[in-house]
This record gives sequence, structure tokens and C-alpha cells, in this order.
Amino acid sequence: MLYAEDLVEGVTHELGTYLVTAEDIVEFASRWDPQGFHVDEDVARAGVFGGLIASGIHSLAIVQRLAVTGLFQKWAVIAGRSLTDLQMTSPVRPGMELRGTLRVDAVEEKGPDRALVHQSVVLWHDDTEVLRYSGTAYVARRPG
Amino acid sequence: MLYAEDLVEGVTHELGTYLVTAEDIVEFASRWDPQGFHVDEDVARAGVFGGLIASGIHSLAIVQRLAVTGLFQKWAVIAGRSLTDLQMTSPVRPGMELRGTLRVDAVEEKGPDRALVHQSVVLWHDDTEVLRYSGTAYVARRPG
Repeated sequence: MLYAEDLVEGVTHELGTYLVTAEDIVEFASRWDPQGFHVDEDVARAGVFGGLIASGIHSLAIVQRLAVTGLFQKWAVIAGRSLTDLQMTSPVRPGMELRGTLRVDAVEEKGPDRALVHQSVVLWHDDTEVLRYSGTAYVARRPG
Repeated sequence: MLYAEDLVEGVTHELGTYLVTAEDIVEFASRWDPQGFHVDEDVARAGVFGGLIASGIHSLAIVQRLAVTGLFQKWAVIAGRSLTDLQMTSPVRPGMELRGTLRVDAVEEKGPDRALVHQSVVLWHDDTEVLRYSGTAYVARRPG
């Protein structure tokens, strides 16, 4: 288990990859973001993107899954705190293999038991950023 | 269908309500945010929140669902663009009935066919904000 003291500012971590399918896009959006260009191939084809694109919330969920399985499960995370400047800079389409990275920007002490960890999180398709945000989470300091 | 010209700056829209269950919290988080305090009652009970809390991504997905079904399906939305200052200010727990509101802060013309609509979105439990963000989305101008 890694505690706040173990995190190194400036290091970028690879979070692994996730293959997006059309079924996945439609299933997620049907439940959480049922706009035509996310759930209906015909509507999407006639729209400005020329085909299905993933909900931005779905892309965010994907990079969160990658961050948790690739990193946070080894960290003493207490809870996420904030998320700023989420940019969806390029559409996510069926068949794309996405890759996540997380940079530890700063580790800010917040009392005896925890630190606030500032992160830059990016979801990539090849060398193109499809989503980026800056986030903070509380991480426990080493007990005792 | 409402176009950019039809949206009134300063108006706050009610988006409806959503009842969160423990099953819902665990199901969402198991897929997208499998941290112990979101997916395991025992881990959650021993943690700082004293029980299960919803993933922040889940809360965001809930307010997006409310916004789409309560509002965006009547708007000529082209796509979401950005999301800033997402704050998760109070934990979301099983049994809470959440309510969404969306304020149209500004309608910014972006060329002949679209406007960028700036919004303040809040998810409430009773009179407590549990999540808030500022977002932008492209909305089509009335054709012709």
C-alpha cells in the first residue's frame, strides 16, 4: 500500500488500456446520457460527428476505471475531492483503444492523517488526447 | 425543439429527481470505480464515511441523466464541450432522493449555426448540494 509520503511529484503513471465498442457506448448512454448521437446509429450518422460517439461521462468513467485498477487500488485513497477543467477534445468512437495516464502534480499536506493529491489525468487515442482533467483526492498518510 | 435563440439567460430549470439505492451504487462502482468504499459495505463501514458512498462519477452520471431526460431532449444539443469546477461537496448515500437543477448562465454565439451554452448544474439532497459543476455545450441555432 502506498501512502501520501510515497507519492512522487512530477511522475506520470501509465494506467493501461480500454477498448471501446459500439455496444458499450450505447449501453452506457442508454442509462446515463440518452442523447441521440450517443444511442442511435442513424441519428448519429446524420449528425455533425457522422457516427456514434461516446458520452463524455462514459469517457470519464473509463479513465476512472483505468486509474482505480491501474493505480488507486495500490494507494491509500480516502476519497476523491474535486475535478476541474474537464475537456473533451476529440470524439471517442467505436473500436478505439484508449490509454490513460495520471501525473502527480503536487502532494499537499492536510493535517496529520492525510494529504490532498493534485493530479493531471489524460485519456489518449494513439497520440491524441480525447479527454483531460485536473483532479484532487485525499490520500492517507502512513499511520503511526 | 428549442434552439439557442430560445434559451433564456439566468433561468434555472428543475430536472427532476432520482432515488439512489445501495445496489445502484455498488453496480455502477463495480464497473467504473471499484474502490472499496464504493463497492464493499464492510470496507465502507470501517472507513471515514462510515458506510457506502456513491462514486463521484456515478453522481455526475445521475445528474447528466436528469439533465438529458428533463431538458436536453427538448434542446437542439450538438455536443457537450467542457466541464469545470466539479465539486463533490457532500457524500451520496443509499436511500437518498437526489434532485437536479440547471441554470443557463450565458448563451454565447459561435458562428452562424450554433451557440455555446454556459450552465451551472447542481445535484441536491434536500437543501444540501452534493455535486456542482459548470459546463458548456454547443446548441444549434434555429435553421434558415
